[in-house]
Amino acid sequence: MTDRIKGILSPVLTPFKSGYVPDPERFVSHCRWLLANDVSLAVFGTNSEANSLSENERIDLLEQLVEAGIDPRRLMPGTGCCSLPATVRLTSHAVKLGCAGVLMLPPFYYKGVTDEGLYRSFAETIERVGDKRLRIYLYHIPPVAQVGISLDLIDRLLKAYPETIAGMKDSSGDWSNTKAVLDHFSRAGFDVFVGSETFLLANMRNGGRGAISATANVNPANIAALHREWASSDADAMQGRLDRVRKIFAKYPMIAAMKRAVAHWREDEDWSRMRPPLVEIAARESTTLIEELKTAGFDMPGIRSTIVSQCQ
Amino acid sequence: MTDRIKGILSPVLTPFKSGYVPDPERFVSHCRWLLANDVSLAVFGTNSEANSLSENERIDLLEQLVEAGIDPRRLMPGTGCCSLPATVRLTSHAVKLGCAGVLMLPPFYYKGVTDEGLYRSFAETIERVGDKRLRIYLYHIPPVAQVGISLDLIDRLLKAYPETIAGMKDSSGDWSNTKAVLDHFSRAGFDVFVGSETFLLANMRNGGRGAISATANVNPANIAALHREWASSDADAMQGRLDRVRKIFAKYPMIAAMKRAVAHWREDEDWSRMRPPLVEIAARESTTLIEELKTAGFDMPGIRSTIVSQCQ
Repeated sequence: MTDRIKGILSPVLTPFKSGYVPDPERFVSHCRWLLANDVSLAVFGTNSEANSLSENERIDLLEQLVEAGIDPRRLMPGTGCCSLPATVRLTSHAVKLGCAGVLMLPPFYYKGVTDEGLYRSFAETIERVGDKRLRIYLYHIPPVAQVGISLDLIDRLLKAYPETIAGMKDSSGDWSNTKAVLDHFSRAGFDVFVGSETFLLANMRNGGRGAISATANVNPANIAALHREWASSDADAMQGRLDRVRKIFAKYPMIAAMKRAVAHWREDEDWSRMRPPLVEIAARESTTLIEELKTAGFDMPGIRSTIVSQCQ
Repeated sequence: MTDRIKGILSPVLTPFKSGYVPDPERFVSHCRWLLANDVSLAVFGTNSEANSLSENERIDLLEQLVEAGIDPRRLMPGTGCCSLPATVRLTSHAVKLGCAGVLMLPPFYYKGVTDEGLYRSFAETIERVGDKRLRIYLYHIPPVAQVGISLDLIDRLLKAYPETIAGMKDSSGDWSNTKAVLDHFSRAGFDVFVGSETFLLANMRNGGRGAISATANVNPANIAALHREWASSDADAMQGRLDRVRKIFAKYPMIAAMKRAVAHWREDEDWSRMRPPLVEIAARESTTLIEELKTAGFDMPGIRSTIVSQCQ
């Protein structure tokens, strides 16, 4: 289990060209900047607008990353869809490419579903993929998916598939839930990632493995630094500085605000484009956001230089 | 506009073989029984477990229906997915097959999206499909999709695409919303279907066009009769009888309960199978359901005889 992925991951923003077409060049470039800042790649997460991408688009983008030389051991693509065959297809593809793991949403259209139904869904996916290399990180994000992952469900899945069920991302925003998961399962080798760096220090102090956080797209180096130095005497102050940046982005529609910041610091307007049903932030909000970030001393060092060759 | 589809449609139940594989033979057979009872086919709705089907499975099942001789003018497949390319693909396919229209969910993963974002999503779909034959019925089902269709959005879409935006299905369960839609748009040729036969008589008396209702899968003849005879003196009594049957099914998980009833009256256990994340109803509930239905005088006349050739 020691070779499992850990630390900080970013649900990588997906850039679009005109006509809402995914833009592999900007995507690869952003991934390289994140890796250069010690942040791994949870591509196709909620903040990636991944649920606005088709299966083929996800498969194509993932292949372009690997072909560009990105190490698949730094990749944890999101593969959980509403339909079982789609989840199986994306998951099999990720495993074949050698990805470290997959971040798997439960099927999220039907609400009020039972743990039995969710268990069958994950179990059937594991059986159909049928590959011992598969590592699943369960994705608990009730504010968006509305369908969550209960302690009972984790327990049952871990007992049935102890090697495959590797951990979870908790985006509930509810520390008491994260704590309960840590208390119940972290000693069984179940790796807990918090869904926001706001909980990073608390997670590390309680046996967690890291964070998979939206704002790792824009503030990667500082978040990764806290992961490395969580046991240091400066850790609480570092956490405070991370929280101040996060709070600025959280005042706006988060994904659009992060794309706006990338567009500003890269001096590349195309980066701000959103695919429907999401939209860009308004012009006035853009101005306020950038001003607030500058006032707070925020920067994205090196983002304009990582165009082609840096890191793997 | 007079040739547009109207009356009663059923979000057709999707039967699965062992291994959760869609079963085209039972599907075609059930569709024939519904058509023989004057009910058209809103295949791939919420009650069809359509969001648990892949794009390819939907395309394949729709082709099998048409190849089996089902008249595409009686078909209104659901085609709204989370991702724009998937929605465009399914919609284009339905139009090419000559379907009467499509029932289109808004993209439903991201919550709290703006009308601007939803407008872009529908507009881009219409532009990409690029076919004058396309007729879209907007699907408003906030209890499940969580993302709804506002009056402002309908107004904007109708103004931009008056021929294409043909109507809506209102599954809000909120008559005041249906009434507002009727009052604002029915005279502009916008066809309103209620999402439950509970509101059928009210809808017809206020200028609506019919119902697209789950229980039309199991009680088709009686629901279709009220649509034909809504102006008769017996209409309120007919509505009362429909409501009593609906109430029995509504006490249980609706899709599983309807499949159980079909399995019972067809004497075909395979019909009760659900694809994850949904599950069958428990054995004890099954017994109670069938007893309640029998006590109420419920029957599914002719369902065992429509195996191969009836109607188109």
